[in-house]
Amino acid sequence: MNFTLQGVDSQTAARAGVLETAHGTIETPIYMPVGTRASVKAIEQRELLELDAQIILGNTYHLYLKPGTAILQNAGGLHKFMNWPRPILTDSGGFQVFSLSELREISEEGATFKSHIDGTRHLFSPENVIDTQRLIGSDIMMAFDECPPHDADPDYLRKSHELTLRWAARCQNQFAKTSGVYGYEQSLFAITQGGTNEMLRAESTKRLVEMDFEGYAIGGLAVGEPAEEMYRMIEVSHPLLPANKPRYLMGVGTPENILNAIERGVDMFDCVIPTREGRNGRIYTRTGILNLRAAKYRDDFRPIDEGFDNYVCKNFSRAYIRHLLNVGEILGLQLCSLHNTSFFIWLTKTARAHILKGDFQTWKAEFFARYCHEQESDKR
Amino acid sequence: MNFTLQGVDSQTAARAGVLETAHGTIETPIYMPVGTRASVKAIEQRELLELDAQIILGNTYHLYLKPGTAILQNAGGLHKFMNWPRPILTDSGGFQVFSLSELREISEEGATFKSHIDGTRHLFSPENVIDTQRLIGSDIMMAFDECPPHDADPDYLRKSHELTLRWAARCQNQFAKTSGVYGYEQSLFAITQGGTNEMLRAESTKRLVEMDFEGYAIGGLAVGEPAEEMYRMIEVSHPLLPANKPRYLMGVGTPENILNAIERGVDMFDCVIPTREGRNGRIYTRTGILNLRAAKYRDDFRPIDEGFDNYVCKNFSRAYIRHLLNVGEILGLQLCSLHNTSFFIWLTKTARAHILKGDFQTWKAEFFARYCHEQESDKR
Ligand SMILES: [Zn+2]
Ligand SMILES: [Zn+2]
Repeated sequence: MNFTLQGVDSQTAARAGVLETAHGTIETPIYMPVGTRASVKAIEQRELLELDAQIILGNTYHLYLKPGTAILQNAGGLHKFMNWPRPILTDSGGFQVFSLSELREISEEGATFKSHIDGTRHLFSPENVIDTQRLIGSDIMMAFDECPPHDADPDYLRKSHELTLRWAARCQNQFAKTSGVYGYEQSLFAITQGGTNEMLRAESTKRLVEMDFEGYAIGGLAVGEPAEEMYRMIEVSHPLLPANKPRYLMGVGTPENILNAIERGVDMFDCVIPTREGRNGRIYTRTGILNLRAAKYRDDFRPIDEGFDNYVCKNFSRAYIRHLLNVGEILGLQLCSLHNTSFFIWLTKTARAHILKGDFQTWKAEFFARYCHEQESDKR
Repeated sequence: MNFTLQGVDSQTAARAGVLETAHGTIETPIYMPVGTRASVKAIEQRELLELDAQIILGNTYHLYLKPGTAILQNAGGLHKFMNWPRPILTDSGGFQVFSLSELREISEEGATFKSHIDGTRHLFSPENVIDTQRLIGSDIMMAFDECPPHDADPDYLRKSHELTLRWAARCQNQFAKTSGVYGYEQSLFAITQGGTNEMLRAESTKRLVEMDFEGYAIGGLAVGEPAEEMYRMIEVSHPLLPANKPRYLMGVGTPENILNAIERGVDMFDCVIPTREGRNGRIYTRTGILNLRAAKYRDDFRPIDEGFDNYVCKNFSRAYIRHLLNVGEILGLQLCSLHNTSFFIWLTKTARAHILKGDFQTWKAEFFARYCHEQESDKR
């Protein structure tokens, strides 16, 4: 993996870079669509290519349970299994073990949990999570971390962050002892923890930077804390993270969150908002969010976002998509997921262009002036 | 509308024709995908074009209830509402009134029913069903008919068929008194009834042919009677129907049903099997039906139908699609619906090519030899 900075904003910490992987190049800042279970929900792979998705996510926890590593290995890895030719990043499963599974028990060894699907018992350790990601064949693997809840007490937070550090070292060790199963190189990112405690976050970041990973995720955020605290943690991390390595803010977020984090130096984002909210008819446009289930769109024959360049806006009206959602047609979910994903990809791509052009802040202010103004008028 | 026969098989009643409508040409025999509520379930309009769907169905009953004729009229008709540039045929709603709605009451005037959605009361009459189809703007409209159950007693069957005849005359009258709302020509097909009673079926057919409609549907079949009785009714209809008008067997059916009906002179088919069974993982291939939910496909990395020319077979494995169905990913429904619809379109298109080539029967025998042989071996 190779990361090159192409430009840094003169007024903010915003950066534009290029990340090279075995499956191609990723231009940052980047929004990465989430394909948890080997599918970006309701979107075809050729459509992701059409939207110019440059990298997608998979999830170690979900893929380990179904289809399981044996099938993925027989397929020749996740890329071949799902026929996705471009880069894949896999989350380590830490977050899912702690949020989805039952009866988790954490020990030095790892996390024992019961599958949310069938109740079977499993152990995730730093070592086997690396092995699983080797079999998945993701271009970017994540270290196994413990994700404490955002209201964890300081004592728990400290112990948890120290455990995450020891696990990170074991991940790195296992990563070094193994190699790609399918003949191409994979890389490993660390995940900083420490909640919204500045001191712990700084310590977590410094210690992981000393270990020299290929990239860094800012973890344990977007779990219920106020956005301002999340921004503060990015600011705390900023001077401590090496400038020449990619920075990934996990599970974030809204257009506001993403642009504010880009402004603070973050390069990579993933979030299920576009597909999850899309399936509920919440549609992101340059002029704000539309709740397309609302009766007022019944007779609105304008496109979702007039002049926006994607299949949905060029071909269908709000009234038609509202009808599809209203009667429960699957096509409604498809079109809303496609549009929202397209919008988020457009958002980070456009932010990137303006960082390189040198007018990121001006563009961001203009974007929000239009985005928030119309959104308010929509609420009236 | 204009229908031209291009070829009739020398050994069977199979025909190849061309139907010209305001929205383009339909080559028969043809399978018409079903877009009941302004969407062919889980398939995008551009995908229907890619599969070369030449005509799709809409349903008067469903579209009348949602989105309703006011919205369709404001949109400029169903073609514009759903952005489908090619021909549309609408069923009259008769079948749905009698199968879906509650508390239906039939009188000379029409059928009163309660909406299956919200329980509201509505009246469908021959006149207002024509008016509704004018507002929908379908290229081919169907007359309003009563669909008796297949086990209706002879007395009921006779009365019902006579009512359908009187309703057909009123439809034709209303059709003559009105014209297309959107500036193009629409045409009206009659629906023969009479159940599986040869005498009634013949009488229904003769009387409707005397009225001179632009096409004829053979209705009230595929409602639970044995396939042999359905074929017999097509055979009874064959000599009575004018050779120079299209013949449509409503709601049929399996590949076996379709090819056997083509052999007996039927030109047009619609059926929800491809999408409905697709959503359940029942997949049609040239070598039979696969139940893709079965565990044995877990590790089967072959395409659904090796060498079949569509997006699904060229890009995804049985194991991948089985995984999607297994974990409940929407993409699984999309890919299965797309493949099955593609298969049915291929089936009638290929039948047509062989009618024109003069070897329909040979091809049909070869098709079934492969289709049924493998299907059996699949069951073992
Ligand atoms: Zn998120
Ligand atoms: Zn059917």
